[in-house]
Amino acid sequence: MTAEKPIRIEGSGTYLPRKVSSDEIEKKFNLRSNFSEKYSGVKFRHQVTFESNGYMGARAVEKALLDANLNIEDIDALIAAGATFDYPLPNKSSVILSEIENGNTDNITTFDVDSTCLSFVSAFEIAASMLDGEKYKRIIIVSSEIASKGLNPLEPESLTLFGDGAAAFILKYDERNKARYYKSSFKTYKEGLNYTIIKGGGNKYHFKDYPYSPELYSFEMDGFKLLKLAKQKLPNFINLFLSSLNIETKGIDVVVPHQASKVGLSMFKNFNVFHENQILENLETHGNCIAASIPILLHDSIANGKIKRDDTCLLIGTSAGFSIGALLFRY
Amino acid sequence: MTAEKPIRIEGSGTYLPRKVSSDEIEKKFNLRSNFSEKYSGVKFRHQVTFESNGYMGARAVEKALLDANLNIEDIDALIAAGATFDYPLPNKSSVILSEIENGNTDNITTFDVDSTCLSFVSAFEIAASMLDGEKYKRIIIVSSEIASKGLNPLEPESLTLFGDGAAAFILKYDERNKARYYKSSFKTYKEGLNYTIIKGGGNKYHFKDYPYSPELYSFEMDGFKLLKLAKQKLPNFINLFLSSLNIETKGIDVVVPHQASKVGLSMFKNFNVFHENQILENLETHGNCIAASIPILLHDSIANGKIKRDDTCLLIGTSAGFSIGALLFRY
Repeated sequence: MTAEKPIRIEGSGTYLPRKVSSDEIEKKFNLRSNFSEKYSGVKFRHQVTFESNGYMGARAVEKALLDANLNIEDIDALIAAGATFDYPLPNKSSVILSEIENGNTDNITTFDVDSTCLSFVSAFEIAASMLDGEKYKRIIIVSSEIASKGLNPLEPESLTLFGDGAAAFILKYDERNKARYYKSSFKTYKEGLNYTIIKGGGNKYHFKDYPYSPELYSFEMDGFKLLKLAKQKLPNFINLFLSSLNIETKGIDVVVPHQASKVGLSMFKNFNVFHENQILENLETHGNCIAASIPILLHDSIANGKIKRDDTCLLIGTSAGFSIGALLFRY
Repeated sequence: MTAEKPIRIEGSGTYLPRKVSSDEIEKKFNLRSNFSEKYSGVKFRHQVTFESNGYMGARAVEKALLDANLNIEDIDALIAAGATFDYPLPNKSSVILSEIENGNTDNITTFDVDSTCLSFVSAFEIAASMLDGEKYKRIIIVSSEIASKGLNPLEPESLTLFGDGAAAFILKYDERNKARYYKSSFKTYKEGLNYTIIKGGGNKYHFKDYPYSPELYSFEMDGFKLLKLAKQKLPNFINLFLSSLNIETKGIDVVVPHQASKVGLSMFKNFNVFHENQILENLETHGNCIAASIPILLHDSIANGKIKRDDTCLLIGTSAGFSIGALLFRY
């Protein structure tokens, strides 16, 4: 889809589980005091206690509906966009739909989109393609992620970096105002496939054949190689994307990057493509919430006035795979 | 997307692992001779030995490219559509992309779509929405499924019902001929959420906290409730879908149903909406290959001449969640 489209964010909502301080994690895992802030840049993150992906996702959807003054009956499709899940089967969108309270959901299309950390951005592009004001008038995208259960207790950096949470956005096809989907681009660079991985729990290392061990069944990251690949690929990707925009869309007001890590965000700022005050952040207070990072930051920035109607916003990030993606819209 | 669109299947390919007779399974698991044919309707299915989802998917993609006389560089996006996976992270499309031999894949967008057994049909609708002849000229959809590892050795019906395999289809935006995407519809009925489930291995029953047991980590199906719900919802869904078509599109030549089960297919035929000779089947020789069932059957039916250019084809099925979906196109 090359052409811009009249797509408007009609409402959004988030759900955050219990707030957990870095101090608490450092004590629990015998880490040096201030390890988290120094290495991960994270002071607080949220972590589930009783919550599931379905529970958090359904609450975020309900809040987004409330924000837009809509009922679930007004929604034509629900896309669950994320990397983590309650069950290997059925899919996340069905689970989230089943936990939504009130309202008849029998006329809703559901499916999951997974491009790991970029899932929300991919789903935004897909929804923008599908929305036509007829068959699909409104689509809700929900990213509900639980990172905390897949962390290796022997890996202090990921233990302190990741957070859990959910966010939902309602997109509407709406020709009556100036909100727009402008453009998006996604590329996958296969040399980075193994730089971020959870090896165990799929068909390659099936739990039937491989007993549980934190090493095999936890998130693993080769931070050095990942950063090197990002440094190599990101500048060219950004330049190509920006140069393809027309004059109007070049007036980017706000950049919402994926909150990958402290070093990742520093690197992004050091490219000097955007002014520091254009770039929004919530790593310090939420950690890396996988696919939920971008929509949580987007929601909070709308709520606190950092993003206003008619602002041109760029969503951008990297994801496991290894992929880079960007999407430009007018709020 | 209500409007029809000039979308053409340019090529397809499949990969099937080792053929396994029902006799072999019956002997291995001490089942009565002919149990499989009687209860599951399956004589043969294919099961992986060394193959992974990534391996089978990449081979199917390569065959589809060969069939269309294209290189991977000609493809703008790769969608992995399915329910099973090699790793919890990264996503399937990245894994499949990384295993494709020859060619530069650096300009490809990848993402996964999961609507369980209907994933290929959902991805077909999504691809049809995204294809515009400019940004997205060609999209390849690949469904690569390994069911055999998630089966409970104590559940003879699912042991004999399911099969493994992969299929890939290249869709092209092409205004120069009569091939068309016409229409599609998907609905999720949340009361059926738990009728088909793999409980263990996600965040709800994390392998960290729940040691492996065949019951918890295997596919579970409440066949009776599932069939009851399908009987209740399918006729109305089909009637609504068919009545929404215009006169031209009502001339359906071929119906490609998901190969859910012997009783599921019988029920579908008993609705008497379509003639038996319109309805294609491969349950007997492939079993239920989850999301790969429909595209494998579609590929083989094109190859053996049961589907010819200009034929109007209906893809239809049910999926875990519980969902019903249908998509109509002219080949």
